[in-house]
Amino acid sequence: KEDAKAAAKAALKPSVNVGGRFFLDSAVFSQNQQSVDQVGDAENAIKLRTCWVELKGNVLENTQYRLWFDLSSQVSLLDVYLDFGELPYIQNFRIGHFFEPFSMQQLTPNKYLTFMERSSPFLLGRDLGVMAHSDNADANWTYGIGLFVSEQSNKPPFYQSDEDSSAITGRFTYLPWYDEASDGRGLIHFGVGYSWRHLGDKKLRFRNRPDSALAPFIVDTGNFAATAYNLAGLEAAYAYGSFIMQSEYHYVSADTVDFGAESFDHYYIQASYVLTGENRPYNRRSGSFSNRIVPYENFFRVRTADGCIGRGRGAWEIAYRYAHDNLTSDNIFGGRDYRHLVSLNWYLSPFTRAMFEYDFSQTNDPVASHGDLHVFQMRMQFDF
Amino acid sequence: KEDAKAAAKAALKPSVNVGGRFFLDSAVFSQNQQSVDQVGDAENAIKLRTCWVELKGNVLENTQYRLWFDLSSQVSLLDVYLDFGELPYIQNFRIGHFFEPFSMQQLTPNKYLTFMERSSPFLLGRDLGVMAHSDNADANWTYGIGLFVSEQSNKPPFYQSDEDSSAITGRFTYLPWYDEASDGRGLIHFGVGYSWRHLGDKKLRFRNRPDSALAPFIVDTGNFAATAYNLAGLEAAYAYGSFIMQSEYHYVSADTVDFGAESFDHYYIQASYVLTGENRPYNRRSGSFSNRIVPYENFFRVRTADGCIGRGRGAWEIAYRYAHDNLTSDNIFGGRDYRHLVSLNWYLSPFTRAMFEYDFSQTNDPVASHGDLHVFQMRMQFDF
Amino acid sequence: KEDAKAAAKAALKPSVNVGGRFFLDSAVFSQNQQSVDQVGDAENAIKLRTCWVELKGNVLENTQYRLWFDLSSQVSLLDVYLDFGELPYIQNFRIGHFFEPFSMQQLTPNKYLTFMERSSPFLLGRDLGVMAHSDNADANWTYGIGLFVSEQSNKPPFYQSDEDSSAITGRFTYLPWYDEASDGRGLIHFGVGYSWRHLGDKKLRFRNRPDSALAPFIVDTGNFAATAYNLAGLEAAYAYGSFIMQSEYHYVSADTVDFGAESFDHYYIQASYVLTGENRPYNRRSGSFSNRIVPYENFFRVRTADGCIGRGRGAWEIAYRYAHDNLTSDNIFGGRDYRHLVSLNWYLSPFTRAMFEYDFSQTNDPVASHGDLHVFQMRMQFDF
Repeated sequence: KEDAKAAAKAALKPSVNVGGRFFLDSAVFSQNQQSVDQVGDAENAIKLRTCWVELKGNVLENTQYRLWFDLSSQVSLLDVYLDFGELPYIQNFRIGHFFEPFSMQQLTPNKYLTFMERSSPFLLGRDLGVMAHSDNADANWTYGIGLFVSEQSNKPPFYQSDEDSSAITGRFTYLPWYDEASDGRGLIHFGVGYSWRHLGDKKLRFRNRPDSALAPFIVDTGNFAATAYNLAGLEAAYAYGSFIMQSEYHYVSADTVDFGAESFDHYYIQASYVLTGENRPYNRRSGSFSNRIVPYENFFRVRTADGCIGRGRGAWEIAYRYAHDNLTSDNIFGGRDYRHLVSLNWYLSPFTRAMFEYDFSQTNDPVASHGDLHVFQMRMQFDF
Repeated sequence: KEDAKAAAKAALKPSVNVGGRFFLDSAVFSQNQQSVDQVGDAENAIKLRTCWVELKGNVLENTQYRLWFDLSSQVSLLDVYLDFGELPYIQNFRIGHFFEPFSMQQLTPNKYLTFMERSSPFLLGRDLGVMAHSDNADANWTYGIGLFVSEQSNKPPFYQSDEDSSAITGRFTYLPWYDEASDGRGLIHFGVGYSWRHLGDKKLRFRNRPDSALAPFIVDTGNFAATAYNLAGLEAAYAYGSFIMQSEYHYVSADTVDFGAESFDHYYIQASYVLTGENRPYNRRSGSFSNRIVPYENFFRVRTADGCIGRGRGAWEIAYRYAHDNLTSDNIFGGRDYRHLVSLNWYLSPFTRAMFEYDFSQTNDPVASHGDLHVFQMRMQFDF
Repeated sequence: KEDAKAAAKAALKPSVNVGGRFFLDSAVFSQNQQSVDQVGDAENAIKLRTCWVELKGNVLENTQYRLWFDLSSQVSLLDVYLDFGELPYIQNFRIGHFFEPFSMQQLTPNKYLTFMERSSPFLLGRDLGVMAHSDNADANWTYGIGLFVSEQSNKPPFYQSDEDSSAITGRFTYLPWYDEASDGRGLIHFGVGYSWRHLGDKKLRFRNRPDSALAPFIVDTGNFAATAYNLAGLEAAYAYGSFIMQSEYHYVSADTVDFGAESFDHYYIQASYVLTGENRPYNRRSGSFSNRIVPYENFFRVRTADGCIGRGRGAWEIAYRYAHDNLTSDNIFGGRDYRHLVSLNWYLSPFTRAMFEYDFSQTNDPVASHGDLHVFQMRMQFDF
């Protein structure tokens, strides 16, 4: 009887999967004098960019949880949520701390991004909130809509104020073409996103780095007073075999206290090709290319029985992205940048990736025109 | 031979269970002017109250360990101990960082508490020390007695001083009635606790919030000089099926530097009833209601084959607590409060709970009388 | 088909082992007046010295990873690396954050050290870098050579500066005698190590405590300006059954800005004997005594069937170390110390150890001669 009770209890017990990821970055910079005037001296750097521990699992088949945290610079909480599935009408309901549903780039996990960093200065990141969303492996559409609160940045996830600092954010994606026979090696993706955001502390700021977490900010509005802002996004992507093309446009209209409505925008367009023939699978649950590239042959170099050296080459990918930030509006002068990013990615195994990037950015702001910043950077990435 | 050695080594290896818990709290406050004068403006808040990662296991059958830490606000260490069992005379011996053996309320893990927060301002929390204690699943009594050191609060678990800051703490509980046939659905519990505490830094302070971690402190003695204090507690509880009634009384006598002996006290009485018929089992090892409510039917809502919506309702519990703090003594005027707390708990599964609470507290202190503070709060709780 | 794909995916998945360790230390100090003048009052202390969580595993048979972090005082990252094995010529290649290959004492994990703390003020600790190294369980030699960057100590693992702060570090060990028949119960070990270190911030400091993490620093050069330094080390060890003798000599030559070359050194010699007959196995992969003492009989005390008390005694080890730091050079007066350390170690199980140490140190520095500091310290150690 005791055994039967223990067995019943064990069957109920939530599953626990332990995982993690870490990225080691190094970067070397080169600038012209205008860039030094604009952003100061960009010093070469090496850093453990990301060091995540990830706990996740299922409870009673229809509920999933995550408890993820980052240790790369003190401790910060990432995904911490409960997700109830198989609900009628809405499909899934999520509560906790997680990504707001906006932008294909944002919703692609960092370990699956084609480039080392995301490009947009308007990404929303993780916030406390609730969200209804789809989670359907076989559909040609996804949706997500949620209510969030902007956290106090000095001690997230926490917000305390009688001022309203809430946001409503939604995203809808659609696949007009998806090649089922090849498990999605060919597809066309469209998406729209929107967020309406009230600012409890009436402070707003946008800024961005040149595609490198170790670089200084090259465009920056500084803090300005605003009561709310709207954020809209458009997405399009096309995949054909090993080739992927993807683009997004983000538009912000802020209700400033001093100047009325001011607007900013960003777009990027990128293309990537896996030289060794593999493809990055599309994830129909999340409406993004959120899956591993699994090399046909993993990297290895070993002595073989006959004394020679046996080799596996892994997978190799080349990619290019052009991005533009416009943080200068009628009365706020955050600057404009134009960025070219070239990347070579080497997948040693499905879990190990070495990345080599060269980024050229040109910035125009009130300090100087044609500030040129060159970044050469590398990453060793691993997840488990 | 290599295999045999590896197997022998694996058999010795400590087991490791990974678990965790997180609680997401939100609270809305309402105050009268007297309360604002007393404690300032209580601002609405939302917070990840608790975010624990828990490692635990066994070594060689007779020793258990725990390494628990909280990530909700930077990192803090919780239970970190070794517990040697099956010892003659004393049963168990524990060394490390853990709860001092005082108060049924304290020794009930937060995930099993009937309410969102404990009520007493005198709880001792975790400290570095050693403890002898019983751990007997079939006995009608428990005991625990230990020697502890009060930590430096700014960097626990750590104490460095030539001044003595030690404490002796003990607790004894007894069950005059325990219905074995129903596995304890009926029982009567009595307990006593005592702690003698030396203050190395000669500073003492008691304070309390109105049953909500997001609320301000409503009673507070401020720091006062004292060399030592005594803490005594009485416990009583009665369970009959789904109904539980529980009460404690805590009394403090402090040896102050300026005024001689000063005394403070606290009591609470609470009742809870599980509407859906389940019961919260008593844990005879720890002498407290430290077990899950396991719903007869877990919550779910799904489309059934015939197109209707199938439902499971989970378990529902209602509860009420009355609590009183008296932090005003002859010469120290920390205030008095009277608190009514009503709670509705929804157990979606054994591991998932939604809590809805309303708290009314009235505070009298030197600043004002009849400071009324209303709290409406919710929690989403999960553990794995 | 879905099942086959899932199985193939699972086979590729990196393994994850969760472990950890925690050490609880307490220390009592006694000083003469000269020592008080030199280092101030050494106050008695109790501390959770070490509280590590350890994730590690394998990917695709030839790659290992570690993600270890310490929670004893906020969070700090320990080993975070990828190690590629079975490579031709170099054997292994490691990238990330890990111990530089210098000193047998440093490369012995703290859980396997004979004493509570390492003795040398010149140990390099963990740094960001890459390393080629051997990993051969059956060879009579090891090597390691790597390129590292010295981190910014306030937020490791991170370095950002255009100044060069790199280091080249290497170590080679050799076993002229290794008794294969007894799995290394008899052996002779020799080793050499060398590191050349550029100082980007031109600051250097060496200091040391008297074999206790809770004690103050007794020798300390203070910060002085230097552009680079060389570190050289010699190692010798002899094991015969339960007896081990081990010694190292460390020599530093610093290129100071103000005085030209200045040199410092350290040596220790230690002997240990396991009274109960076990031995601490040598690890041929790492060239150090990095293995558990596995007691012939674990510690236990239980009631036996006939009412008596059954006992297991565990393993008992005694050890002595003499160490000397010379941090006084021609123009820098950091002091000289002479330290005697006696230790009694009780291994309750392969994973549990109680340590009892007495340390006597005598320090001569510009403040005073013959500063005597006595340390009585204990540790409860556990790893899983």
